Amino acid sequence: MRQIQLYDTTLRDGAQGEGISFSVVDKLHITQKLDELGIHFIEGGWPGSNPKDVEFFKKAQSLTLSHSTLVAFGSTRRLKTKAEADANLLALASAGVKVVTIVGKSSELQVTQVLETTLDENLSMIADSIGYLRARGLTVFLDAEHFFDGFKANPSYSLRVVEVAAEAGADAVVLCDTNGGTMPDEITAVINAVRKVSDVPLGIHAHNDGELAVANTLAAVNAGVTQVQGTINGYGERCGNANLCSVIPDLKLKMGINCISDEQLAKLTEVSHYVSEVANLIPDAFSPYVGSSAFSHKGGLHVSALRKWAESYQHIDPTQVGNKPRVLVSELSGKENIIYKAKEMGLDLPPSGKEARKLLEQVKLLESRGFQYENAEASFELLLHRAKPEYQPPFELVDFMLVVEKRRRPPTRKNIEEMLSEAVVKVKVGNEIMHTAAEGNGPVNALDEALRKALLQFYPSLAQVRLVDYKVRILEESVGTGSQVRVLIESSDGVEEWRTVGSSTNIIEASWLALADSLEYWLLKQKTNK
Amino acid sequence: MRQIQLYDTTLRDGAQGEGISFSVVDKLHITQKLDELGIHFIEGGWPGSNPKDVEFFKKAQSLTLSHSTLVAFGSTRRLKTKAEADANLLALASAGVKVVTIVGKSSELQVTQVLETTLDENLSMIADSIGYLRARGLTVFLDAEHFFDGFKANPSYSLRVVEVAAEAGADAVVLCDTNGGTMPDEITAVINAVRKVSDVPLGIHAHNDGELAVANTLAAVNAGVTQVQGTINGYGERCGNANLCSVIPDLKLKMGINCISDEQLAKLTEVSHYVSEVANLIPDAFSPYVGSSAFSHKGGLHVSALRKWAESYQHIDPTQVGNKPRVLVSELSGKENIIYKAKEMGLDLPPSGKEARKLLEQVKLLESRGFQYENAEASFELLLHRAKPEYQPPFELVDFMLVVEKRRRPPTRKNIEEMLSEAVVKVKVGNEIMHTAAEGNGPVNALDEALRKALLQFYPSLAQVRLVDYKVRILEESVGTGSQVRVLIESSDGVEEWRTVGSSTNIIEASWLALADSLEYWLLKQKTNK
Repeated sequence: MRQIQLYDTTLRDGAQGEGISFSVVDKLHITQKLDELGIHFIEGGWPGSNPKDVEFFKKAQSLTLSHSTLVAFGSTRRLKTKAEADANLLALASAGVKVVTIVGKSSELQVTQVLETTLDENLSMIADSIGYLRARGLTVFLDAEHFFDGFKANPSYSLRVVEVAAEAGADAVVLCDTNGGTMPDEITAVINAVRKVSDVPLGIHAHNDGELAVANTLAAVNAGVTQVQGTINGYGERCGNANLCSVIPDLKLKMGINCISDEQLAKLTEVSHYVSEVANLIPDAFSPYVGSSAFSHKGGLHVSALRKWAESYQHIDPTQVGNKPRVLVSELSGKENIIYKAKEMGLDLPPSGKEARKLLEQVKLLESRGFQYENAEASFELLLHRAKPEYQPPFELVDFMLVVEKRRRPPTRKNIEEMLSEAVVKVKVGNEIMHTAAEGNGPVNALDEALRKALLQFYPSLAQVRLVDYKVRILEESVGTGSQVRVLIESSDGVEEWRTVGSSTNIIEASWLALADSLEYWLLKQKTNK
Repeated sequence: MRQIQLYDTTLRDGAQGEGISFSVVDKLHITQKLDELGIHFIEGGWPGSNPKDVEFFKKAQSLTLSHSTLVAFGSTRRLKTKAEADANLLALASAGVKVVTIVGKSSELQVTQVLETTLDENLSMIADSIGYLRARGLTVFLDAEHFFDGFKANPSYSLRVVEVAAEAGADAVVLCDTNGGTMPDEITAVINAVRKVSDVPLGIHAHNDGELAVANTLAAVNAGVTQVQGTINGYGERCGNANLCSVIPDLKLKMGINCISDEQLAKLTEVSHYVSEVANLIPDAFSPYVGSSAFSHKGGLHVSALRKWAESYQHIDPTQVGNKPRVLVSELSGKENIIYKAKEMGLDLPPSGKEARKLLEQVKLLESRGFQYENAEASFELLLHRAKPEYQPPFELVDFMLVVEKRRRPPTRKNIEEMLSEAVVKVKVGNEIMHTAAEGNGPVNALDEALRKALLQFYPSLAQVRLVDYKVRILEESVGTGSQVRVLIESSDGVEEWRTVGSSTNIIEASWLALADSLEYWLLKQKTNK
């Protein structure tokens, strides 16, 4: 069977996307996820260009990767320097990786107009750099920048670049559609021409400026390339890179190219959402394969057809990519969802469906007010418990007051600069009322501190619970600062993690609700486990 | 030159997209815009399915369209009814349009499993319905549903549908990839097979489930279809329809098919944004051709190349589609970006670069504290102005206090339920101090109200400024509620829009900074324009 190498550049080219910035820790986490997905090569960054990437490669050496090989990126040597004296190449050679990719120019006009050197000097830069890195035992891929545009203007020079790279020992030459404007039939024709002059393994690096990055990548695979570069969710400069979340299932499910295993493919949706969370971009609901709408059905006709024949209105089984079908506005499937979910949580709802129907109504009402339970299963489980008449909450919120103040002349305490955030809370446990106050470095932090302070006296074990993530989403965005706000909180006790949700037009109230759910959920779990 | 008919179904299939709902007025406005863009056919809705669409076609008769023909959509007659007795066909014939499209099944399995009738009855339904509509003087297009999937399972039946439709007088048969999972080479092969049995004009209707809708559409055009169906921004069920905002420029600028005029193409970005505004969806910044990031440049290397040679890093001249290039300022960028950007804003920085270097240091410092300027150009412009020794800000923030309170027994005023948010602000204009207070439905809204209240006395024209978007990003997510918060605000005065940023560990302070920048920027622009 045909083998295709998947090469991910989310951490390097993907980070060129507008609004994307990864910390070193983010990059390490994403690397781990890409390894689970079975990506063959992970381009981690450009150690010659910034200290953050140097640090990444240092720390990445302690990662245990099962499927992936880490790649460092750089450029060919500078103009009129010896490769041995080039700091960028040295950084590549010292990155602690076995595989490197260097970018070189392969378009006549780019060489003369942008690099401002001779065509021969550019060829030497490519050959010298590959030679230097190969001599140090590294596998070397050449990203041939602007290859397709260059070929269209002067095919012989672009072809010469491929030949020179192959002669210098490049392990693959990756043809880049850097400006993203090439059409699929041009991709095919150019690759056919390259095949005639060299049998070096080829790769494809496509951008999405004509909305054709995925199609161009598949056309290149059909024309015989063996390496496919892209990014998770198609993140990247301008309109982005080829989207691996579409390329991978297209290759595997449509073209029968078994690039990752079935189990790995089933992680695709999870990996896509994980990367968008880390990039702090809202996942695109309409994304092929992995979007939350990708298998959703709105039309009543489609829904009734689906019940007759599951494949009637979907092109694949969504579970193959770890996604699931969603029927929008359908009471019946909704009730079944509730029963199914409750069962998952160990709560058996009678199949008669009366309780489930009531819960469904409540979920619908709360979701119409901005709550969302899909990502906040702890809040959903509390909803199930609270519906039981015998449920006794471990505490009750009575009320709170919050003061946030900014004064030109700050108060006496210097460490908080000019800002003061102070929360006063009242909570009830059994028949006792606890009334206390705390400061924080922001209003939500102050509320969190005050609430814990009040509850710790009753539940000292709460000290091990901490917030690990706090997210805010503004709903109905066009209403500006008056819109509905959804807060999602992730908490951990060092062993398990759980997520809760709050919603209100008031961000403070939304946070308060999610905070309280988090602590109530944990206390409830402790009681159940005893 | 080859003629291609553009057929827009934003108002019908596009409205099946999750979260999209158009009012009759919305539809009328969008129709007008599509006419300006030069779309040949506009599918307005399904008069047989709902009263809103009946009303749309009634009102649309008073529109004056210069380029477009309105189309009503429906289905073939019901099972075992006479076409003359079919309410749905009657509604089509009475819609007051000259062109209708009807959808019919063209897949054996869909007929037997979903429609649950015989293959012959389905052929009669198609023939009868076309005959009925043609007899009433209408131009009739047939949407052959599930054509490609049907062809793969049983080619002869799908081909028979095309023949029957052609014999019945259909003016075009539109081959639909209803489930969106077909690959470009399959599209080509199937259309070649259809061409062998019939010379009826063909159309293509593609969905994006494999991220190939645009590529499939172009493949169909290459194979000889003459009608192209799609939606603005690719809106539509699941992953959406073929995106006309990419198909049109791909056809015109890449394939040389002159489907609309140069002047019309230059309206593409405007139409795209207009439709997303009406659909109440945030425009996708990364959209090919029309996205705000489509011609943006972040890397310092690219920016310096752009200054040497404009086409070096862009595939077309953005003005051809009514878009523009943008240089992003960020910690990744160099001094050159700052100089370029300042020039764009009409501020010449000396090329010596001392000022630019100082500004770059400042940007880097602020970005390390959580600010981000690439999406907040108004805040960046203020940074440039504030660096000038002679700059006089239109107002100064002195201080504020904010109280958020939740009481079990709410205060006397019932309309705010249990929550109170009240802001007290002090601002200075010239030598005057304004000290005032306001309530809001959340803390940021209260601050916004109080700040405006204070400033309106000095600057009554500020009344026309309103917030149109408010976004919150939590940075360094693992720190929980103590993390850095970035607030991005988009404002509008009804003519222009601008974006500002604030950052702090305190969400209130971050919002306060972004709010103040928004108002200061607008006041500054007013002064400059005078």
